[in-house]
Amino acid sequence: MEFLTGVKQKETVGIQEILEGDYEGKTVRINGAIHNIRDMGEVAFVILRKAEGLVQCVYEEGRTEFDLKTLKEESAVEITGKVAREERAPQGFEIRMEAVKVLAEPDQVLPLAVSKYKMHTSLEARLAVRPVSLRNVRERAKFKIQEGIVRGFRDFLHTQGFTEIHTPKIVARGAEGGSNVFRLDYFGKKAELGQSPQFYKQTMVGVFDRVFEVAPVFRAEKHNTTRHLNEYIGLDFEMGYIDSFDDVMAMETGFLQYAMELLKRDYQKELDMLEVTLPDVSRIPSVRFDRAKELVSEKYNRRIRNPYDLEPEEELLIGRYFKEEYDSDFVFVTHYPSKKRPFYAMDDPEDPRFTLSFDLLFRGLEVTTGGQRIHDYQEILAKMEKRHMDPADIASYLMIFKYGMPPHGGLGIGLERLTMRLLDEQNVRELSLFPRDVNRLEP
Amino acid sequence: MEFLTGVKQKETVGIQEILEGDYEGKTVRINGAIHNIRDMGEVAFVILRKAEGLVQCVYEEGRTEFDLKTLKEESAVEITGKVAREERAPQGFEIRMEAVKVLAEPDQVLPLAVSKYKMHTSLEARLAVRPVSLRNVRERAKFKIQEGIVRGFRDFLHTQGFTEIHTPKIVARGAEGGSNVFRLDYFGKKAELGQSPQFYKQTMVGVFDRVFEVAPVFRAEKHNTTRHLNEYIGLDFEMGYIDSFDDVMAMETGFLQYAMELLKRDYQKELDMLEVTLPDVSRIPSVRFDRAKELVSEKYNRRIRNPYDLEPEEELLIGRYFKEEYDSDFVFVTHYPSKKRPFYAMDDPEDPRFTLSFDLLFRGLEVTTGGQRIHDYQEILAKMEKRHMDPADIASYLMIFKYGMPPHGGLGIGLERLTMRLLDEQNVRELSLFPRDVNRLEP
Repeated sequence: MEFLTGVKQKETVGIQEILEGDYEGKTVRINGAIHNIRDMGEVAFVILRKAEGLVQCVYEEGRTEFDLKTLKEESAVEITGKVAREERAPQGFEIRMEAVKVLAEPDQVLPLAVSKYKMHTSLEARLAVRPVSLRNVRERAKFKIQEGIVRGFRDFLHTQGFTEIHTPKIVARGAEGGSNVFRLDYFGKKAELGQSPQFYKQTMVGVFDRVFEVAPVFRAEKHNTTRHLNEYIGLDFEMGYIDSFDDVMAMETGFLQYAMELLKRDYQKELDMLEVTLPDVSRIPSVRFDRAKELVSEKYNRRIRNPYDLEPEEELLIGRYFKEEYDSDFVFVTHYPSKKRPFYAMDDPEDPRFTLSFDLLFRGLEVTTGGQRIHDYQEILAKMEKRHMDPADIASYLMIFKYGMPPHGGLGIGLERLTMRLLDEQNVRELSLFPRDVNRLEP
Repeated sequence: MEFLTGVKQKETVGIQEILEGDYEGKTVRINGAIHNIRDMGEVAFVILRKAEGLVQCVYEEGRTEFDLKTLKEESAVEITGKVAREERAPQGFEIRMEAVKVLAEPDQVLPLAVSKYKMHTSLEARLAVRPVSLRNVRERAKFKIQEGIVRGFRDFLHTQGFTEIHTPKIVARGAEGGSNVFRLDYFGKKAELGQSPQFYKQTMVGVFDRVFEVAPVFRAEKHNTTRHLNEYIGLDFEMGYIDSFDDVMAMETGFLQYAMELLKRDYQKELDMLEVTLPDVSRIPSVRFDRAKELVSEKYNRRIRNPYDLEPEEELLIGRYFKEEYDSDFVFVTHYPSKKRPFYAMDDPEDPRFTLSFDLLFRGLEVTTGGQRIHDYQEILAKMEKRHMDPADIASYLMIFKYGMPPHGGLGIGLERLTMRLLDEQNVRELSLFPRDVNRLEP
C-alpha cells in the first residue's frame, strides 16, 4: 500500500531560499515561466517569472546545453544553473544556465506584451485578455496587495474576538430591497442573490457576539461607472454590546492601522513596484453629514442642492477638505439622513431625521457603510410599518429581535474600492480579477 | 474636530481576561446574554452566555440591587459583581452579582430550550428556528470548529507560497456542465452561478503559480440527501509545476496535518464539548479506483455492478476497509474513469480510460475531488472534440492554454462535508449555518 505523509520536499529552489541560503556558486534547479528573452548574440538574458518575482538567467552559447531558438516566451521550464551574485539583476543574483527542461509550451505567441514593466494598453484591451494580462508583474502586484488587506481584516478581527462565518448567497429576499437585485428561480421558488450579508451577520451576533465574513456581494445596478461593480467582495463585520456606533468606527480604524502595518511588513515589494505610499491612519476625523455639507459649501463656494443626499462630487470635496485641513486621506461622515438608510438603521433619538450611521470616505470615495442597528423588536416593527413594509416577508430575520438581541452595529467595506483608492487607480475594475459590469460577463 | 484613533478599550472584562488576570475578590463589569436562570429561592444562578463560553453569576436577594423577577432569558445585560473562585462553575469562577444593567430585552420567550446542554429536538425543528437554535452552546461549537478548519486551510497554504484569490460567482458558463446549474438573467444575457472556481483558479496558476480560494459554490442538484447542499463552501486550491498529482494529494495531507494541530491548539474546548477525537492524519493510504472496488468486493462479498462508477455504499465499504486494514479514517482513491471526470482532467497516458485524478474519502464519504489537469492547448482541444464540446463556448478559459500553462493540478474540498465527518454528524445540514436544499430557502 502507498501512503501520503505530508508535503513533498521539492528539489527545485525558490527565490527566497536562494536569497536566504548559501547558494553562491552552487548549481540549483529552479522552475518558472519564461517571461522574456533578450538575445544579445552570444549571450541571452532569459527572465524567469515566478510567483515571488523575476529571476535573471543567463544563456551562453556552448555553456548551456540547449538551443536558445527552441525556447519560447510563456513556456514553463525547469532551469539548471549556477547561482552568481549580480547586483544589476532584479534579485541581486543571476542563474548561469547549464540546462533547460521544457515542462510545457504555449501554442501561440501572447497577444500583448505582458513582460513590459508598464503595459501601455487600455483597460478595455487588458480586460479582454485578462487571463494572460494578469501575468504582467505590476498587474498581479495589485492583487497581492489586495490579499494583504484581506489577511489584515481577518487577522485583526481574530485578535478582537470575532468569529468568521459563512452565510448563504442565495436568499429569499435581499437585505437592502430596491430594484438592484439579481433574481433567479430556486426549484420553482423566487430567489435573489444576496446584496449584503446584513440579516445573517446580525443574526450571528446573537450567537457569537462578534462576527465577520469575507464573501461576494451582488448588486444589479445598471449604471456603468468607474466605481461600481455588479459583483464585489464585501468585508463585513458586526459586533454586539456596543455603547454607540463610535465602537464600530473605532474598530474599523483599528483594522486600517493593522492592515497598513501588515502591508508594510509583508508587501513592501509590491508597494514599491506600484509606487504606493501608505496613508497615515493613526487618527481619522469624523464629521456629521450636515456639517460636512456646510464645510464644503463654505470653503468651495458650492450651493447645497439637496440637504438629504451627498453627490459624488460633494464626496470628493469632503475628501479634499479633510486632506487640506487635517492632512487626512480618510474621513468618517456620520449621521446620514434616515431616508437614505435602510429600515434596520437606528435613528438618532435626538433627531430621528438622522441615523446613528456613517460612511468612511477614502480620498473622497465611499469605501464603507456602517452604523448601529435597531435591536428592539417593537422598534423595528414600528419602523417597518412607517415604511409600509410587511413583517411577514422577513419573519425569519425579525425572529432574532423577537427573542432578544444585544445593542449592535457593524459595517461593510468594498474590498475593490478600498484597494482602488490605496493604489490610486482610476477604475474599480482594475482591482477585480474578473470584473462583472453591465456589459461584462466574461472572462 | 473629533478623531477615531483605534480600538476603544472596554471597561467590561472577558472570560479569558479573568482566567489569566488577578481578579479574585475584585469587582468587575461583564456583559452577555442571559442564557438561563435557575431560581433556588434566596439565591439564583444566572448563567451568562458570551462568545467565549458560559459564566455563572450568583444572584442573592438583598445583595444584588435588582429584582430577579424582571430579568429575562435572552436579555442582553451588563453585570457588576465580585469574582470568586468556584470549582463547580463552568469556568472555575463565578460572579457574585451586585448590580445588573439591562441593555436590551426580548419581546417573547424562546420557542425552544436553547439553554439545554443537548437539545433533544429534530434537525427539522432546529432549522426552522435556526437564528435562535444556533445560540445553543453545542450548536455553535460546530461552527467554531469549522472556523478552525478554514483558518487551517488558509494559514497552511500561506506557508506554502499560495496566493488567495477571489473569482466571480456569476459566470457565463459553469465549469462542470450538466444540468445542475442555477441560471439567471444578467442584463439580458444568460448567466449561471459558478459550480466551482475551476476555470478561474487554473487561470490564476498562470499568474501566481499557486492559488487558493474559500468561497460559495452553487449546485442545483435535485436530490435531497443527507450529504448534499445546493450552496456550500468550497475550499479550493490549484498548484503549478507539479511532477504528478501525488503533489496535490501530498499538499492536502499537509493541510489536514496542519489543521488537526490547529484544532488541538485553539479549539480543544469545542472538541471536548462535542466529544470529538481528532483522526490520525500522519499517513493516508492511496489506492487505485479499480483496485479499491476489487478489495471491497473480495472482503465484503459484493458483486461489482458497474466498473466505472462508485456507489455511495461502495464508498462506505472502502472507508470501512481502510479503517479495518490500516486503521485510517481517510483514503485517497485514485485513477477515476475518464468518463466520470470533466473534460479538463488529464487522462492517464498509460491507460486513457482512467484519469490522473483522485477523491479523498473520509470515513467513507467523498470530501475532496482533485487531480492533474490538461495543460496543453492541442490536448484539451482534442479532448473537447471527442466530447462534442465547442471551444468557442469557453474561449476565454482556453486562452490560458493557447498562450502557455505549466503542468498543474488542484482540488476542491467541501467544507461542510469535511466538518460533518470530523464531528460524526449524520446530516450535512448540521454544518451549514443556513442550509440551502431543494425545499429550504429560509431562514
